[in-house]
Amino acid sequence: MDHPIKQVAITGGTHGNELTGVYLVKHWSAYPDEVTRDSFSTELHLANPDANQQVRRYIDQDLNRQFNIHDLNNPELTGCEQQRAKDLNKLLGPKEDPRVDFVIDLHTTTANMGMSLIFNTNDPLVVGMAFYVKQKMPHATLFYHPSDRLEDNFLTSVGRLNGFLIEAGPIAQGLLNHHVYSESQTAVTHALDYLEKVNQGETIDLPSQMSGYQFIEKIPLPEDASGEIIAMVHPNLQNKDYQPINPGDPLFITLAGETIPYAGDATVYGAFINEAAYYDQHIGLSLMKKVDVALEDTK
Amino acid sequence: MDHPIKQVAITGGTHGNELTGVYLVKHWSAYPDEVTRDSFSTELHLANPDANQQVRRYIDQDLNRQFNIHDLNNPELTGCEQQRAKDLNKLLGPKEDPRVDFVIDLHTTTANMGMSLIFNTNDPLVVGMAFYVKQKMPHATLFYHPSDRLEDNFLTSVGRLNGFLIEAGPIAQGLLNHHVYSESQTAVTHALDYLEKVNQGETIDLPSQMSGYQFIEKIPLPEDASGEIIAMVHPNLQNKDYQPINPGDPLFITLAGETIPYAGDATVYGAFINEAAYYDQHIGLSLMKKVDVALEDTK
Repeated sequence: MDHPIKQVAITGGTHGNELTGVYLVKHWSAYPDEVTRDSFSTELHLANPDANQQVRRYIDQDLNRQFNIHDLNNPELTGCEQQRAKDLNKLLGPKEDPRVDFVIDLHTTTANMGMSLIFNTNDPLVVGMAFYVKQKMPHATLFYHPSDRLEDNFLTSVGRLNGFLIEAGPIAQGLLNHHVYSESQTAVTHALDYLEKVNQGETIDLPSQMSGYQFIEKIPLPEDASGEIIAMVHPNLQNKDYQPINPGDPLFITLAGETIPYAGDATVYGAFINEAAYYDQHIGLSLMKKVDVALEDTK
Repeated sequence: MDHPIKQVAITGGTHGNELTGVYLVKHWSAYPDEVTRDSFSTELHLANPDANQQVRRYIDQDLNRQFNIHDLNNPELTGCEQQRAKDLNKLLGPKEDPRVDFVIDLHTTTANMGMSLIFNTNDPLVVGMAFYVKQKMPHATLFYHPSDRLEDNFLTSVGRLNGFLIEAGPIAQGLLNHHVYSESQTAVTHALDYLEKVNQGETIDLPSQMSGYQFIEKIPLPEDASGEIIAMVHPNLQNKDYQPINPGDPLFITLAGETIPYAGDATVYGAFINEAAYYDQHIGLSLMKKVDVALEDTK
């Protein structure tokens, strides 16, 4: 029988201060049985050891924005993470014809996003994995952000199938929290079980669609004329990821206590609300729309 | 009338990734009336602008461990924060005969410590401030850590009175949270009001003692033979700052899921439980004992 998936990579520490993935990779290196399945090989990688050493998200650039095909093939990009992306592309890819079928990349967020399953393709094998994990972990949220695999700049896009990013929170950077660790471990276990079932030709009973959220845009933190941050996420919005934001709802509050409402004209939903890693770009949150994600027939 | 307090310094960003104090100092610089009182002068300082620029706790050393009198007077200590401590000692001190009477230093923690009022002296003026702020904010916790002012290595010890550290959490590093911001702002307001009342000779009705916690020791995260962290704070202990830890209670859980209990023989209390900033030293928590803090008669 032909197994569609032969090689799976699990990557941790793509952001060097997100320790959950780092320590899960270390743990699985000592207990490889937990991530071993009969029908495919699993490999484990620390994605950004230099940044991890310094407990920083990145040294020069955000590694998880460096995997666009043009950037990977641009010899002028020589920053630490630009070079590391090229090394990972050699190791796991190359992107144009990847050795690895599937990359599961482990992330955490300071936002109250619980267990979010981020996937960037409507490929039924990937959507099926998201549906399968959500069936096993009903509190998980589907975060759909479709993109062209070659143009996509996430590490997961180096796999043949535009893979799977596990985003668990809320957790501060630079530490471990057993709940977040255990949730991430469980989600990976289910994801690998799913691939094993697919390879073995097992019938997997999945719905034809599930509710999720699709990325619309990022909303900047308010700035003054000199570009300084002058407001923070409003307390009514803090921790309210995936809950509705209606026109006129409080979005930000200035340092002096003035509320800034949402000026849009339709109900949206927040994600990555008050994510520390986005302060360098003065981003306050992502806006999402509620969508029904369809699982297309694979036959 | 002789005013015991003439000069108060409020410092923020002593740890460069604790943004609450940084943005409060920026806010008060624009709205100085909020921290102005009739009977003394208030000055505002960003304590570690270089680390703040990089959104890191420190560049070379933890600034808030550099104010021991021997280190301040040691010309061989030339790291970024060692030098910065000497500059702050010139600006606010010198420690042996300080210009500034009182330093209020603003901090945040990833631990669930709420509003903690940390003070390192039994001087009645300082203890009185802690009592006064706790009267106004009854949910605040008194964190008593007595030390000799000249030997003390905290920034607050540069003031003539071994001052006052406001530690608010839980909050991730590198972001603002309005609740933590507002709580810190309120605590400083009460602290300044207290100094104003003292200076004006007002009668302040304070109890002769209040319950608090006194620092005992720091407990390391379990390591393997090569010095790698192999366990994290146990989920039963996470977020349980200032709650009792009894002999045999779970303290840590290994990456593989094995529980490590507390091996002490008396009930203690945790603080700084899973503080991200202490991972560099592999510290899991502080142990505290419950104490009655006495306010000595000032007459």
